[in-house]
Amino acid sequence: MGILVVGSVAFDSVETPFGKMDSILGGSATYFSTSASFFTDVSLVAVVGDDFQEEHIDFLRSRNIDLTGLSRVNGKTFHWKGKYGYDLNEAQTLETHLNVFESFKPVIPALYAGADYLFLANIDPELQMEVLNQMQKPRVVACDTMNFWISSKREALKKVVERVDILIINEGEARQFTGEANLVKAAKSILAMGAKTLIIKRGEYGVLMFTDSTIFAAPAYPLEEVFDPTGAGDTFAGGFMGYLANTGDTSEEGIRQAIIFGSVMASFNVEDFSLNRLKKLDYKEIESRYRGFKKMTHFEGLSSR
Amino acid sequence: MGILVVGSVAFDSVETPFGKMDSILGGSATYFSTSASFFTDVSLVAVVGDDFQEEHIDFLRSRNIDLTGLSRVNGKTFHWKGKYGYDLNEAQTLETHLNVFESFKPVIPALYAGADYLFLANIDPELQMEVLNQMQKPRVVACDTMNFWISSKREALKKVVERVDILIINEGEARQFTGEANLVKAAKSILAMGAKTLIIKRGEYGVLMFTDSTIFAAPAYPLEEVFDPTGAGDTFAGGFMGYLANTGDTSEEGIRQAIIFGSVMASFNVEDFSLNRLKKLDYKEIESRYRGFKKMTHFEGLSSR
Repeated sequence: MGILVVGSVAFDSVETPFGKMDSILGGSATYFSTSASFFTDVSLVAVVGDDFQEEHIDFLRSRNIDLTGLSRVNGKTFHWKGKYGYDLNEAQTLETHLNVFESFKPVIPALYAGADYLFLANIDPELQMEVLNQMQKPRVVACDTMNFWISSKREALKKVVERVDILIINEGEARQFTGEANLVKAAKSILAMGAKTLIIKRGEYGVLMFTDSTIFAAPAYPLEEVFDPTGAGDTFAGGFMGYLANTGDTSEEGIRQAIIFGSVMASFNVEDFSLNRLKKLDYKEIESRYRGFKKMTHFEGLSSR
Repeated sequence: MGILVVGSVAFDSVETPFGKMDSILGGSATYFSTSASFFTDVSLVAVVGDDFQEEHIDFLRSRNIDLTGLSRVNGKTFHWKGKYGYDLNEAQTLETHLNVFESFKPVIPALYAGADYLFLANIDPELQMEVLNQMQKPRVVACDTMNFWISSKREALKKVVERVDILIINEGEARQFTGEANLVKAAKSILAMGAKTLIIKRGEYGVLMFTDSTIFAAPAYPLEEVFDPTGAGDTFAGGFMGYLANTGDTSEEGIRQAIIFGSVMASFNVEDFSLNRLKKLDYKEIESRYRGFKKMTHFEGLSSR
């Protein structure tokens, strides 16, 4: 079995210096599952309202994403409105309408409970825990979170982190969660909570991975045109988990490769609004950019000169 | 012949969240030459006042740095006062007393004019040009600059950049110099001015190198204790040029290795105030951290699986 993701399917209204788009397809589970679908089978648990268009369902189906777990209820779909300045690293949230997402109680279909790979996208840590409790024995559990939960549900979040294998958060969140300005100290403090692997996302600066004995640093792919960073983190996580699930190789070496695949997917995603770039993407382009990462980071080791 | 560096030898008064030091040894040429001295012979052209202590001269001599070009004149040595917050990436300048540095006119001793490697540290671009005009035919010229010269002497700076092989500046300066928010575009615009290689320093995020056809991304070494970032950029440049001069390998592969050596040196330098860490450093530690960089960035390429 492939990956199960629990998160949001949403509409985004996004303004960047390069344009403005209203009510386009978004949501953590949407970006994650689309990205992961390039590598493996994905099942999605989320909720949408009755305003959610059939074309989006069709798109997700076209990516072979199993939508048994997507419930459609009366009301409006979660809607996020945000804005980016020229510093595309940080979004300014203008409006958040949770709508049907407010009463979202993820119920894992029996068929999904045996999934080997589970991604808990950024939702209330108490719900993340409920999902965990409905699962049988996943091989790899990864989770994301955000500043809001770190400040409002810190204890619940800590309990989730105790039970996950991989925590994927951004730099600011790692500092906030631990109260440590220094990232190496912050990482140690998070690993001490129980996660075996910590992946810290740094936007255009790439990713740092920490385990109890190693550090891996991956750059972001320098792009000449970044249109819309929305969903980059979930697209990263999708490529990362997708590759892990595809190979089943959860050694450190496998995780490092998965991080590069995640970075590749995120680098494509920011090239256009919404999922537009992922919709046009093919696997050859993914491999080619992976090779680009390899070239971009290569340097010779020390010989015994 | 080794490297010639023209820049400042100064006193710094530095405050960081971890302590406060008054009138400690600093200056771009000091950091650069000390760092480069681990790899090759260095000659220094700079000016100090009559308050410059013999112990500092002794230290530089102990590193085999040729001080024929260090003039000692009546007056006070250049003194910079700065402060760092927990975000150690950016210094806040509190005071700048140019003192004897104000009337610094670099005169290159005849013996130095044939140097193969020249580093023009951050000084007035008009003086950088005067230095260039006194040189015979250096194999590799690299230069640094700062926001102050970019805004006040842009045209003079452009003329210098036309004539150098390698420009080493920080991210903010690259954006300021070109008016481009996007770093890839900024890099293209700088390479179009004439520099063959552009190295963009990003503090704790590492370094990006651009040529007309390639990009190299190197991380910074994640450190648990960063005491004082002063001089990190010049220490980077010193390790970089020092290694280049040592091997004579100016191929892209050689430049990439030199960037890692520069990053290694900078990572040591920030572990203590002033040049204190470099004073205790030995070459075995340098090689060991280079290997650490190699491990930290390694991932497998794509096999034909």
